[in-house]
Amino acid sequence: MDHFADRLTAALRAKGNSVCVGLDPRWESLPLDLQKKHGDGTLGGVARAYEEFCLRILDIVAPLVPVVKPQMAFFEACGPAGLITLQRVLHKAREQGLLTILDGKRNDIASTAQAYADAAFAGVSLAGQVHPVWDADALTVNPYLGRDAIEPFLQSARRSGRGIFILVRTSNPGAGQFQDLSCAGQPLYMHVASAVRAWANESIGKCGLGSVGAVLGAADPEKLAAVRAALPNVYFLVPGYGAQGAGAAETAAAFRADGLGAVVNNSRGITFSFTPTDSAWEAKVEAAASAMIAALAATTSMGRLATAPSRPK
Amino acid sequence: MDHFADRLTAALRAKGNSVCVGLDPRWESLPLDLQKKHGDGTLGGVARAYEEFCLRILDIVAPLVPVVKPQMAFFEACGPAGLITLQRVLHKAREQGLLTILDGKRNDIASTAQAYADAAFAGVSLAGQVHPVWDADALTVNPYLGRDAIEPFLQSARRSGRGIFILVRTSNPGAGQFQDLSCAGQPLYMHVASAVRAWANESIGKCGLGSVGAVLGAADPEKLAAVRAALPNVYFLVPGYGAQGAGAAETAAAFRADGLGAVVNNSRGITFSFTPTDSAWEAKVEAAASAMIAALAATTSMGRLATAPSRPK
Repeated sequence: MDHFADRLTAALRAKGNSVCVGLDPRWESLPLDLQKKHGDGTLGGVARAYEEFCLRILDIVAPLVPVVKPQMAFFEACGPAGLITLQRVLHKAREQGLLTILDGKRNDIASTAQAYADAAFAGVSLAGQVHPVWDADALTVNPYLGRDAIEPFLQSARRSGRGIFILVRTSNPGAGQFQDLSCAGQPLYMHVASAVRAWANESIGKCGLGSVGAVLGAADPEKLAAVRAALPNVYFLVPGYGAQGAGAAETAAAFRADGLGAVVNNSRGITFSFTPTDSAWEAKVEAAASAMIAALAATTSMGRLATAPSRPK
Repeated sequence: MDHFADRLTAALRAKGNSVCVGLDPRWESLPLDLQKKHGDGTLGGVARAYEEFCLRILDIVAPLVPVVKPQMAFFEACGPAGLITLQRVLHKAREQGLLTILDGKRNDIASTAQAYADAAFAGVSLAGQVHPVWDADALTVNPYLGRDAIEPFLQSARRSGRGIFILVRTSNPGAGQFQDLSCAGQPLYMHVASAVRAWANESIGKCGLGSVGAVLGAADPEKLAAVRAALPNVYFLVPGYGAQGAGAAETAAAFRADGLGAVVNNSRGITFSFTPTDSAWEAKVEAAASAMIAALAATTSMGRLATAPSRPK
């Protein structure tokens, strides 16, 4: 498989936008017809409802956006049945030409990290055969355990043309408790950002960006701008757009001048842009995705992706 | 369900030791007879082999030790089939009176963290009914995202008599890259330790310890002693014993003078204390568990658990 950053860059250019649709299914927010159809009081029923809902979302957004990001927690909360759903959703997304970022925020040490990485990317090796598990294009990874815990993800991603997005500065209100602590003159998240830069520089593709990216919330544009300036070759995955309060203006600082460098995620703001009783929910999802694409194009350098794509270096 | 720290304290006293057996199944290390019996070249076969192996391990260790710790990554690497196995292993462990620490090192923000917590502990609420998923006694949690990402785990654990163990200073060689960074005069891990102390103090049981614990590797006894002194009311989950290089002497600093306060994990050193061709593997597992119990009793204040249990405060 080709280099992840090159595949991501090609996908952003092909669709002319940098929107990622987050798949965070929640039972009580599903359209009422799906709740009724699948609501048999079991987690299996919830998993089937999540599957139908996510596949219908994919049908709507696949022609519009380049990337989707399933949140593992909501599928895991249905137990094994939910993880069968997750596999099917990831498979369908790939078939529709979407890139997939699996949002698991996983990490552990050494051989355990290797098990997570194998499952996320190329698959688990067994008697000379490789068995895919999630087969995602990228995985979100937590940095707290340090380099040797990141290494298996780096190697596994490199071998299989996949990417990782490492949490740098997240978008939640309490993110600063540890991430903003001042260590040797700069906040902890800048230390993590420097490590991400080094890892990205070991994995630069033809597009000039690396396959190791950073998760940076849109809650604080100043922080975003500082990290953008320090990490010119790193893709940012930017959560916080929509339900979490940020708009296009807050994400502008995540983009490079050429319109590349960022993937802006919106979960509830697109997939739950309706009330459960709304029978025209699919039209609302499509309208919300289109509105976000337009807002980003108007406000950020991302507009250049659609109008004057820069050539690969 | 009773308070987690009280249940843990009672379990340590009842068994007279603080040994936790880590369940980290790996295909290539399994007894050859299990590899042959289940090796059909599918991940489902691997999952069935893991299930038989873990259940046989539970039969051996349940009379000896108080706690087991399944590592989610190895079950997740088998896909949905592996997670059915994980459910069955957790269920069997509970039936045998073992406490279960689910090692997932999970974390995410707000409602996503809530989904992980619901799945780990009491279960997922659906139309007024609660559906258990993992139903573990405790979960390991990563602190990087800060307080509001820990809060759902704290609340969910408190409501259901469960516990969490927050990564403070891990046992891997590169742990110091971020965890040892000096922030405002003390290393990052001491900032996390202080937060754990505060959370534990909100959750003190009759035994005098809290249901929020700390993961602290046995690799560095000095660090262990410093955190022990600063966090007198906090249970430590101590990995690193056995295959990772630490012995009883290295873990001594994790215990309080009354013999409580620590749970020492050993995974491969017990469950893979044999070679795959060894048909007497179960005897070796039992011997390895017994040897670790004896070593800890001889070297650490843990010996007092078996000889002169302190009374609950």
